[in-house]
Amino acid sequence: MSERLVRIGLLGRGTVGGAFHDLVGERADAIAEATGSRPEITGVLTRSQGDFAEILATSDVIVELMGGVDPTREYVAQALAAGKPVITANKQLLSRHGEELFELAAANDAALRFEAAVAGVIPAIRVIEESLAGAHVERVHGIVNGTTNFILTEMARSGTSYEDALAEAQQLGFAEADPSDDVSGADAAAKIAILARLAFGVNVRLDQVSYEGIEHVTIEDIAYAKEFGLVLKLVGTAERVNGGISARVFPAFLYPSHPLATVNGSFNAVTVESPAITEITMSGPGAGGLQTASAVLGDLVSVITGQSTTRGPAVPAEIVTDITSAFYLHLEVEDKPGVLSEVAAKLAEHEISVKSVVQREKGSQARLVMVMHPTRESRFHAAVEEIAALAVIRTRPRVIRVIEEEFEEGAA
Amino acid sequence: MSERLVRIGLLGRGTVGGAFHDLVGERADAIAEATGSRPEITGVLTRSQGDFAEILATSDVIVELMGGVDPTREYVAQALAAGKPVITANKQLLSRHGEELFELAAANDAALRFEAAVAGVIPAIRVIEESLAGAHVERVHGIVNGTTNFILTEMARSGTSYEDALAEAQQLGFAEADPSDDVSGADAAAKIAILARLAFGVNVRLDQVSYEGIEHVTIEDIAYAKEFGLVLKLVGTAERVNGGISARVFPAFLYPSHPLATVNGSFNAVTVESPAITEITMSGPGAGGLQTASAVLGDLVSVITGQSTTRGPAVPAEIVTDITSAFYLHLEVEDKPGVLSEVAAKLAEHEISVKSVVQREKGSQARLVMVMHPTRESRFHAAVEEIAALAVIRTRPRVIRVIEEEFEEGAA
Repeated sequence: MSERLVRIGLLGRGTVGGAFHDLVGERADAIAEATGSRPEITGVLTRSQGDFAEILATSDVIVELMGGVDPTREYVAQALAAGKPVITANKQLLSRHGEELFELAAANDAALRFEAAVAGVIPAIRVIEESLAGAHVERVHGIVNGTTNFILTEMARSGTSYEDALAEAQQLGFAEADPSDDVSGADAAAKIAILARLAFGVNVRLDQVSYEGIEHVTIEDIAYAKEFGLVLKLVGTAERVNGGISARVFPAFLYPSHPLATVNGSFNAVTVESPAITEITMSGPGAGGLQTASAVLGDLVSVITGQSTTRGPAVPAEIVTDITSAFYLHLEVEDKPGVLSEVAAKLAEHEISVKSVVQREKGSQARLVMVMHPTRESRFHAAVEEIAALAVIRTRPRVIRVIEEEFEEGAA
Repeated sequence: MSERLVRIGLLGRGTVGGAFHDLVGERADAIAEATGSRPEITGVLTRSQGDFAEILATSDVIVELMGGVDPTREYVAQALAAGKPVITANKQLLSRHGEELFELAAANDAALRFEAAVAGVIPAIRVIEESLAGAHVERVHGIVNGTTNFILTEMARSGTSYEDALAEAQQLGFAEADPSDDVSGADAAAKIAILARLAFGVNVRLDQVSYEGIEHVTIEDIAYAKEFGLVLKLVGTAERVNGGISARVFPAFLYPSHPLATVNGSFNAVTVESPAITEITMSGPGAGGLQTASAVLGDLVSVITGQSTTRGPAVPAEIVTDITSAFYLHLEVEDKPGVLSEVAAKLAEHEISVKSVVQREKGSQARLVMVMHPTRESRFHAAVEEIAALAVIRTRPRVIRVIEEEFEEGAA
């Protein structure tokens, strides 16, 4: 079989770009044997060298690993407009300008692939767009940020504070010098926006994904939750609710039988739920230059073998915000008779049902830790405001969601 | 956009065939919208009705859900020879006649897809053939039989015997009236042969996969192993060892941090390991007509969108059998001084290192349960033969492999 040469124009040569460059060199023979086409990087553009127009003209595929939105957006748009397939790992670009780029790709019949943008090596995009193209997806949720999962795992394992665990993550290269995008939940929110777009065919804008981060999680929260057998994770969810879509990122306590509860360290995991399949859960490393480069290489092979996707135009999402959740409530109260009854009365007034309670003395104060049954979020927050105003409450109540459901064991 | 009609010839209308028939009806609109092509079942062949030649002539795709090898093999071969894409869920057919069918598919440029044949809804085939087409896979392993996983989960959870757990599985439809293919490990072996073929590009014949089942697992094995914190699973593994391939199915004790240890009930899970990605683990329901039909539908969408695979010709596998494993050894011994030292001496003679021991009195006998560090299997079996011959040993030693490695937490 005579080999066809596939010329790759590589934009960016940082950690991921460099790893991709090496990986193409290593795997070119195997890919040529499997597909009949030999990939070769024929042009490299960095911030300081290379000419984009020239690289575009002499490449069959553009691989964008520069990051950022400017000038990346312009480069990707030009490549698609020229009908060239584009592979990118840039979640910011896709979550901010995805619709424009998807439309350009469709109009010019050019592939736009981005497996590495969402959950490291986990093939979440491919599974949603290809394996589940015929399925009706009800929910996508998971742990889509490796930095925060590393920090939470360290806090739970060794009892270190948030600050120390973050410093350790930075030292090991799992967190950046400025970690705010990760720890605030913004990074996970961008990924959830992309997953929601693919799973439901609706255009979820980045500002429509509500998010909370892990900056305010204390070691006490984690320790107390252990008494209920709960594990803290930063969870991203996109789901169909009452004819609309709910998309959010939040720290949540999980029961240990939950498939996401055992995902530790910098690993990511994504669960896709659909009535016909029950659920598929995928896990793997969420970060690392080589891992990301490997996901990009998988996309390259798909482009080489001419695989098209099933991505259609998207309608604007109708976002549902007042959803139902279970909650953990942590109160520092005066240690005197009647406190529990006062708190319980407020919850009862709002028709919130308590699942379990732990009360602990601490000098003249006491800690009251409760887990609620699922309730409408707005109703719960109203109750918490009233509880916070009670004279017996000493500090601001701490509230964390609890994911109640247990792992489905049997197939239908 | 004008719609193209995709005519499906369906072979078989049992549980899976019936579910697929309904699912196509339900999802045809969504698929037409996403792909521009509307699938429709235009011919159905069962054992008692329909004419294959006529169905073949009037179909664009053949979906084989009849099962068995005869006449299925002939039908699939004829369809591929006519250049028609074929989708099948038939692991027996593929593990016995895969090479012949892969060659026919390649020679006639016809797609042959079989996601549903290996691990229920888990997209193991797609991930290996597409996401990891550019990667060097070192190992594929997992829980690929839902019936045995259901039985082992029940035994561990409720302490019921193997026989009672099997009866329960049969009552719930997770095991067939004749469960021998499942409980013997033969079904898992067929799946491992297919996975090895795809992961390594070598032709692993069914008779080259060694397998042991779960028929002889006792509730005592499971209970004793719990003292070491171990969980019993039927594991299938295909891996590169010393330039060859080891492919096998065996009951194994796993440490609770192992990603397969928490896969319960009739769920399946597959882990693919490659240096570039570390590992990807996928889990989901392993059985069920609707779940299988859904995996078939994913393949149908791939055929409709013209996705080709990277499957090349395979070289015969060089099978490596004497591998290295850790072992659990359970001995019923006379309760008198010096027994432990006699057993330990035999192990030391064969240079086998003991990791942990539990000894328990039981009337005039004692139970000695040991976990070894990894050792060459042939060496361990030789030691066990000598130990079995010792006068102080009362019953045949019980030996079960232990999978030692802990879950890798960090990305590189």
